[in-house]
Amino acid sequence: MMTSADRETASHDAAEAARAVPDVVTDASGDPLAQAAELGAGAPVLAFDVGGTDIKSALFDADGAMLGLRRTPTPEPGADLPVRLVARLVELGAQLREEHPGVDPVAVGLVVPGIVDEVAGVGVFASNMGWRDAPIRALAEEAFGLPVAFDHDVRTGGWAEHVLGGARPYPDSIVLIIGTGIAGALLLGGVPFTSGGYAGEVGHSPVADEPVCACGARGCLEAIASAGAIARRYTARTGVPVEGAKEVIAFAGAGDEAAAAVWDEALDALALSIAQLTAVIAPQAVVIGGGLSRAGGALFDELRTRLRARLSFHRLPELVPAQLLGNAGILGAALRARSLG
Amino acid sequence: MMTSADRETASHDAAEAARAVPDVVTDASGDPLAQAAELGAGAPVLAFDVGGTDIKSALFDADGAMLGLRRTPTPEPGADLPVRLVARLVELGAQLREEHPGVDPVAVGLVVPGIVDEVAGVGVFASNMGWRDAPIRALAEEAFGLPVAFDHDVRTGGWAEHVLGGARPYPDSIVLIIGTGIAGALLLGGVPFTSGGYAGEVGHSPVADEPVCACGARGCLEAIASAGAIARRYTARTGVPVEGAKEVIAFAGAGDEAAAAVWDEALDALALSIAQLTAVIAPQAVVIGGGLSRAGGALFDELRTRLRARLSFHRLPELVPAQLLGNAGILGAALRARSLG
Repeated sequence: MMTSADRETASHDAAEAARAVPDVVTDASGDPLAQAAELGAGAPVLAFDVGGTDIKSALFDADGAMLGLRRTPTPEPGADLPVRLVARLVELGAQLREEHPGVDPVAVGLVVPGIVDEVAGVGVFASNMGWRDAPIRALAEEAFGLPVAFDHDVRTGGWAEHVLGGARPYPDSIVLIIGTGIAGALLLGGVPFTSGGYAGEVGHSPVADEPVCACGARGCLEAIASAGAIARRYTARTGVPVEGAKEVIAFAGAGDEAAAAVWDEALDALALSIAQLTAVIAPQAVVIGGGLSRAGGALFDELRTRLRARLSFHRLPELVPAQLLGNAGILGAALRARSLG
Repeated sequence: MMTSADRETASHDAAEAARAVPDVVTDASGDPLAQAAELGAGAPVLAFDVGGTDIKSALFDADGAMLGLRRTPTPEPGADLPVRLVARLVELGAQLREEHPGVDPVAVGLVVPGIVDEVAGVGVFASNMGWRDAPIRALAEEAFGLPVAFDHDVRTGGWAEHVLGGARPYPDSIVLIIGTGIAGALLLGGVPFTSGGYAGEVGHSPVADEPVCACGARGCLEAIASAGAIARRYTARTGVPVEGAKEVIAFAGAGDEAAAAVWDEALDALALSIAQLTAVIAPQAVVIGGGLSRAGGALFDELRTRLRARLSFHRLPELVPAQLLGNAGILGAALRARSLG
């Protein structure tokens, strides 16, 4: 028979177990989101990673445990999206607080895509959100009645990868997130280096004379070597539609010449870009995440071999897989929110 | 008739005048060395900038005035060059101290070419000096009986350009010295960023698939766009020997097609490399010095136009001429020596 003390213990154990196992949510590629990395002790915060199609939200407690992580749809684009979005975030926050009544967040972390002025708290432009110069931080602070840390999604995710993930052992490291596009984040001397938000645009660093990139420049790395570009370039050459880079890499492995050429050009462009980073910045590590890093095809081995072939006396960086996967953005948002406390 | 007091005043004035006008010494290209920039008040130090053919030496007083700047030949290469070189530096130091008896240096700054481990105080390798793993700092400290700041010549010159010269207004800036080779130095957040001595190798950052560079890698910027490469590539295409890039640029201006092609390729490679630096590091300024920056041919205008054409949303850096010219190395050596005090 269970005593009242036993019941309390069991209930405590269940709460502990619930806390130890974060919700399993899959990311866009169907992979499960990573387990929460150790955020460590600190202030309880709410965190939101807003994307073009969905919002990831969670509550972080004083031990750093990620509670109630969930993925819900982003409101439809439209003129008043910033206001509707913030209203939706407040609803999500209220749900999370209701489910975890013992956790009282003191700040909010919010990251969004596009061009972000994190100093002014403004979403300058985001093609998939359709906003321009949206004062999102001010709207969110008003609606939540809490201080809000506001930043760029991938830059913040890169920073989380530096603090909590694959880049942790390396004070000088560069995170590359290779997915639809290619984003970068620099950690130099243990400190994020942003140059007012302009640094880290490795994806829009030109490495060739063509093709013309969506940004308007020519030969950007992203236009050759992102997962998006690999799929697009294969279809352009063959007329065969594909779901993504993973399929092209599989075709290349099965002897499809066009697929092999597209994949080979992407690897060469990535190796050239990492060679340039090595010569100029000499990071101890380049941490690679995003869809392409999980797309198979021995990416890391290929890059190591090609990087070595492009350089001579230089000090080669470690090439390390990112660890936080789909959770980098929300973990970074939580870290940013805590830094307000 | 001159009184004794008048005589003292005249003598004082003459000493002042001598101090205000540093010796005029020409650099390798025949240009006069720059006037001493404001080093500011600090400890008196001896400074030496050792090159493959000559040594620049000077004494800096407590006001930061550069005294007795001179250029003398480097001892001949050979197995014991480090020892003979240090003995020569001690002689030069003794001369300078004898000529300026009121100035008592408390430290020595010494910069040398090649691969330099400034932490260990070792000249790791220098092809034009013929040394390997030479413990130059220890030799110099023993011979001078003073603390010695030891570093790489161009890196130190770049740092002086950050502190005293053209890069001074920009906490995030990159100095490129384009001469026989291309050297770079990064100042990020107001602090030199060296990554243990490996960072800043903009000259050995690959920007193309060819030619093979002297370093063993392919398509290094230096192999296409250094003053040395411009002269070499022109001669290789035409069989016509030239003294340097200045001549090739003049030929290009006079309608020589081979010269125009070589110069055009150099400008394109430089613009591409600066475009990459802009995307990844986003410096506020790129400061360009060395022989090529004084070789005519509207270098800065050409680079600005081509840089703009290679980029889109990026924040373009100011392109600024270096100010310290041939004195950057010795001024940097003096700054480094003072930082020991």
